[in-house]
Amino acid sequence: MPELRKDPVTGRWVIISTERHKRPSDFRVEHVTPLGDADCPFCAGREHLTPPEVLAYRHNGSAPNAAGWDLRVVPNKFPALKVEGSLERQGEGMFDRMNGVGAHEVIIETPDHARTLASMSEAEIDRVLWAFRERILDLKQDRRFRYILVFKNHGAAAGATLEHTHSQLIALPIVPDFVREEIEGARQHFAAKERCVYCDILRHEVAAGSRIILESADVVALAPYAPRFPFETWLLPRRHGARYEDAPRHEYLALARLLKSVLMRMERTLERPAYNLIIHSSPFSEDTADYYHWHMELIPKLTRVAGFEWGTGFHINPTSPEEAARVLRNARV
Amino acid sequence: MPELRKDPVTGRWVIISTERHKRPSDFRVEHVTPLGDADCPFCAGREHLTPPEVLAYRHNGSAPNAAGWDLRVVPNKFPALKVEGSLERQGEGMFDRMNGVGAHEVIIETPDHARTLASMSEAEIDRVLWAFRERILDLKQDRRFRYILVFKNHGAAAGATLEHTHSQLIALPIVPDFVREEIEGARQHFAAKERCVYCDILRHEVAAGSRIILESADVVALAPYAPRFPFETWLLPRRHGARYEDAPRHEYLALARLLKSVLMRMERTLERPAYNLIIHSSPFSEDTADYYHWHMELIPKLTRVAGFEWGTGFHINPTSPEEAARVLRNARV
Repeated sequence: MPELRKDPVTGRWVIISTERHKRPSDFRVEHVTPLGDADCPFCAGREHLTPPEVLAYRHNGSAPNAAGWDLRVVPNKFPALKVEGSLERQGEGMFDRMNGVGAHEVIIETPDHARTLASMSEAEIDRVLWAFRERILDLKQDRRFRYILVFKNHGAAAGATLEHTHSQLIALPIVPDFVREEIEGARQHFAAKERCVYCDILRHEVAAGSRIILESADVVALAPYAPRFPFETWLLPRRHGARYEDAPRHEYLALARLLKSVLMRMERTLERPAYNLIIHSSPFSEDTADYYHWHMELIPKLTRVAGFEWGTGFHINPTSPEEAARVLRNARV
Repeated sequence: MPELRKDPVTGRWVIISTERHKRPSDFRVEHVTPLGDADCPFCAGREHLTPPEVLAYRHNGSAPNAAGWDLRVVPNKFPALKVEGSLERQGEGMFDRMNGVGAHEVIIETPDHARTLASMSEAEIDRVLWAFRERILDLKQDRRFRYILVFKNHGAAAGATLEHTHSQLIALPIVPDFVREEIEGARQHFAAKERCVYCDILRHEVAAGSRIILESADVVALAPYAPRFPFETWLLPRRHGARYEDAPRHEYLALARLLKSVLMRMERTLERPAYNLIIHSSPFSEDTADYYHWHMELIPKLTRVAGFEWGTGFHINPTSPEEAARVLRNARV
């Protein structure tokens, strides 16, 4: 019997469709394999092909915008939003608009074209997570911005247009819908129970065990109860905290460790899938300290979103989270 | 300068990204071309490969589940939800679930494998729209269901698994999120202004003209002010009405005419794109007669949804609706 399950934070229902049950080998996945670095603007030595860097971790004495770096952050050459200008909110007949003011940056995770986040060392992944933090702390000083989304598209099927491993950051003048829904769901849970809903989920899942993928002293990787996508994975710090950028230093390394292991397990069991990685953190302008809990969501791209999803906003998932967690937990890496 | 625009019904913001401006020829579209009918379970003469039909428009005297039909409706062989059983809502620790009870049917639009909805006659498309109505009227008698979604996935990129032209219908025991948002947005607009928001949009757009694609006496095809996707198109009946299945007879034919023309224009200008077609209609259990306005949404599949969209629920659209409407309005068909 298929099941309808409700996400305890957003209230969003999903269909776990056992009739369409899929094991890892049943998905027609586009395997991600780097093709080559010809003309890649993110490779070392091609710094002139990107806008000037806003942050770089460099070897002793190397000059800005030249080779000799481990990680670079540059403005996106084709930004979705522009950093100059004022918001100029205005009406347009019955409609509302504002200027597309925002920041759109690219975090080039390594100078080496052949690496992927999964094949980087824990220390290197930690450095990427730390760069996210540095850029958020810088950009949140700009009072035009209300939210910063940090995300990664890995592989063309997940929306990546360049294959050299990179993440992106978009600072927005509004709080996006899905973030608003999470924040509001967490707020209501706290209002009813005076507990953080994510802390409740962590306690429940660690005790139950069936949806746990991996645990460490600081971070838990789990398959959520009502996942929208097959093998959707959440990485939650055990310590309650609303903002990614305020986490203690060691939490980034702990996250890097678990993230690397989960990515390697996905590469092994799902055969190098494309994926999206998204940091969920609190908006700046609101005091969510009591009730929101930052985390990371990892979504391998295994299925195609169709009319049903666009028409309803809810999702048919052919793999139960218990099955996904079991597969990833038992993967040999 | 990119623009942020707000949908007047749902309040959803989108980014119209002029920096990433795309003309029809800039999209890397997977062109939809039927490959062949070998083993196709939807072709005439292969009726034994589907579950028994629940509706068919047949020639004089042809037997059920045999050749001799113009249109057939059958239960989906691999349903996302199952029609037998009770809902059995229950808690599971801190979580909520219910049985996946629902109906999942397939509307086989023609016995001819080589046809597409765009290449069918207006009368044939009208027959498809009428079949939707008949199935909705039948299924809404089942008190377990709160909403019926009628949708079409055309082409593999849009999620179709079989290429023989067909639509689908899913009856759900819940009202999905996106529907809830539309209904709630329309209700709030009515509460503030005592007018239907879609009637307001129709008046505004017909007067402005820049986002109109096509008009007839009964139906208007337009590019919405804040589209999530390039070339997203709405088809709205001019007459206010909350429920698709209650429309007067002539409105289906008027809709079929405009839909055919819009689909042909998309085939011409976007080179046979995959697309999703979705009917937006009122839930059964609510009296939305004053403020909701049924319509159809057509989304050609031109871009890939990436981490940004999954992380935020809002969308970067590289083509302004004014440009999309101009291209489709001026297409020669």
